[in-house]
Amino acid sequence: MLQKVSLGPKSIDKYYEIYNNGFIDELKSLADDLKGLRLCHINSTPFGGGVAELLLSYIPLVRDLGLTADWQVITGDRRFFDITKSLHNAIQGAQYPLLERTTERVYLQNNLENAKELSTDYDVFVVNDPQPAALRHFCEDRHAKWIWRCHIDSSEPDDYAWQFLRPYVEEYDAAIFTMEKFVPSDLGVPVIVPVAPAIDAFSPKNLPIPKDICRGILDNQGIDRNRPLVVQVSRFDPWKDPFGVIKAYQLAKEKIPGLQLALVGSLAGDDPEGWQIYAAIHDEANKDPDIFVFSNLTGVGNMEVNAFQTAADIVLQKSIKEGFGLVVAEALWKQTPMIAGNAGGIPMQMRGKLSDYLVNNVEECAEKIVYIFENPQVSGELGQEGKENIRDNFLTPRLIRDELALMKRLLK
Amino acid sequence: MLQKVSLGPKSIDKYYEIYNNGFIDELKSLADDLKGLRLCHINSTPFGGGVAELLLSYIPLVRDLGLTADWQVITGDRRFFDITKSLHNAIQGAQYPLLERTTERVYLQNNLENAKELSTDYDVFVVNDPQPAALRHFCEDRHAKWIWRCHIDSSEPDDYAWQFLRPYVEEYDAAIFTMEKFVPSDLGVPVIVPVAPAIDAFSPKNLPIPKDICRGILDNQGIDRNRPLVVQVSRFDPWKDPFGVIKAYQLAKEKIPGLQLALVGSLAGDDPEGWQIYAAIHDEANKDPDIFVFSNLTGVGNMEVNAFQTAADIVLQKSIKEGFGLVVAEALWKQTPMIAGNAGGIPMQMRGKLSDYLVNNVEECAEKIVYIFENPQVSGELGQEGKENIRDNFLTPRLIRDELALMKRLLK
Repeated sequence: MLQKVSLGPKSIDKYYEIYNNGFIDELKSLADDLKGLRLCHINSTPFGGGVAELLLSYIPLVRDLGLTADWQVITGDRRFFDITKSLHNAIQGAQYPLLERTTERVYLQNNLENAKELSTDYDVFVVNDPQPAALRHFCEDRHAKWIWRCHIDSSEPDDYAWQFLRPYVEEYDAAIFTMEKFVPSDLGVPVIVPVAPAIDAFSPKNLPIPKDICRGILDNQGIDRNRPLVVQVSRFDPWKDPFGVIKAYQLAKEKIPGLQLALVGSLAGDDPEGWQIYAAIHDEANKDPDIFVFSNLTGVGNMEVNAFQTAADIVLQKSIKEGFGLVVAEALWKQTPMIAGNAGGIPMQMRGKLSDYLVNNVEECAEKIVYIFENPQVSGELGQEGKENIRDNFLTPRLIRDELALMKRLLK
Repeated sequence: MLQKVSLGPKSIDKYYEIYNNGFIDELKSLADDLKGLRLCHINSTPFGGGVAELLLSYIPLVRDLGLTADWQVITGDRRFFDITKSLHNAIQGAQYPLLERTTERVYLQNNLENAKELSTDYDVFVVNDPQPAALRHFCEDRHAKWIWRCHIDSSEPDDYAWQFLRPYVEEYDAAIFTMEKFVPSDLGVPVIVPVAPAIDAFSPKNLPIPKDICRGILDNQGIDRNRPLVVQVSRFDPWKDPFGVIKAYQLAKEKIPGLQLALVGSLAGDDPEGWQIYAAIHDEANKDPDIFVFSNLTGVGNMEVNAFQTAADIVLQKSIKEGFGLVVAEALWKQTPMIAGNAGGIPMQMRGKLSDYLVNNVEECAEKIVYIFENPQVSGELGQEGKENIRDNFLTPRLIRDELALMKRLLK
């Protein structure tokens, strides 16, 4: 049932190109302290979404540090994943529509079945998000340490859903949240630490691509390289407010004629809501030749996302709710000015001068777009400050350091 | 019901960078002769597959030549598309399992409904492949010229399926096949012409990306840039013989130690056969750390495909059956040595010296891999010959020229 994800190797030494302050050596020495450690991350999908993206870099880099690191994916039927999608939304604050005993039974039965299959040859399990949270309850092995890793903004969960989930989480040895303020107030776990996610500077999404090539790519898609361009990269999801982005663009365009907007997103076959939003955005785009919509459907992949983030004059992430917002880190790393919703994990990425570009509504967003185009000298400053903040706080080696430090603490 | 696909602009003048022999001027003068022409391509999907990829470049370039060009997509329910998938395979020679009146009724009913919605404000309709082939039958307007454009190897169709489809095709004014030899022997259409597909030199898949960056991308995925690499880019489909590719790689590896293989493909949510093959390939890959499998699931898009084709030492396309094989043209255009199955439209792309690398089985494929690595001087020759052949015969402006020439002939 449980699937192991196979991954090619990655080299931690490449990060010496970025850090010359001894940080990588420090990380290696921490890994040495943990010599022999066998760790296993568990989540619910091998692809799509931020968690899979994190693990794709994290696991090979931890292996390159000399530790045993595996990634296992729970399986389940459609009904289970429908339930966990609702549960996920409810922990993020939406109403939980599934107040039924049968729902709970399906959730628990599925976790039980996956727990039976789980190999216990590990010293630490890190269980990501609500889907597999009850695994620990059903796993008979009591030798390993168990960490629950919550990636969502769970500061104001739906009470019914959370009270259902909480006892299972409270069996863990530790819990990790993206930020202190995401921790539900009544959670009783011995160790709770804040650890922010991070991006891999050497992945196809973040590796530097010359601006010229990026502009050439956009050019071919019909975007005029001589006119200003704002871009939002995100799932077609109401929390990312794509229609707010379109409105902000329309308002800004009154002052910045020739402005173009590109919405770049991905769609999953099993996300009917995403498809509806995608269709509605297409209808809007059809009315305005300067709005462009791109998706994985026409082969837009990681490198195209990179090209869009690199070539844009401004990247937007007008989220209303956001766990962390990996795309914010991605754009800042490329030194592209960023305007983003003042939500969830975004503000911690937008400190200092960058925080002037956190917005709470469409009007503010439009105003900031206009300001950056009318004051082009700010782009350079914002770009530099953004890149430094990501380097110092939000690259994968820092994430690995924080998690290994927690494991060391739990195991001593 | 029928959907119109919206596309950004592209510039035909960019092709002056490639042709300095008057070819683009000739094309413009042909378009001038057709001034006022309104043409409409119709197919069954706005994304995925070769036809959608062709039209994505073809339609904007025809518009840039001053003509009206639209692209409309027929709609239908799941049952219709299940039927047309079988019909497609059957026209390609597979057995047709749907010998029932109800099947035919669903197919015809769907075509009728789409025909009712079809705007008749066009002078020429080009209808792609079997799915919408009966549209002409149900369209009452008799003013326009109708061309059926078949992209598959229909030289030996399943007889039942073809006899069902044939009368609808015979109502067309003309038919286009990729090659002369794909034309079914009993087809009676007034004008039948061979026109090969083509690739867009300026699309994200084909735009030049420096080899360095391409190697960096592969590097990050765990591929060792200092060891030899062969790549196949194709759907996970038995016609593309992915297991034959793995066997050829294993045989070649006996002589070329350190050899690596990357299989790069895309998966559609509604293709259970593709998923099974993908899982089986993954099982093979798990046994050998030098076999890598990549797909759209982890964000591999057009630019990554470009990077793989550019950085590979050899690209394989070991197809058993192939309409044309756009990926062959893509790799040749990048001057990468190509070893390909001697099937369908592939040989016409592999003329001259290149034809020595057409293979009929696993052993031949392995032998050619070894030969190229042991005789590195051939790579440069093959690369140059391949690029010239694609430039002269298989870029989008040539495709547009051929189709406009046919339209001119039909309209005079």
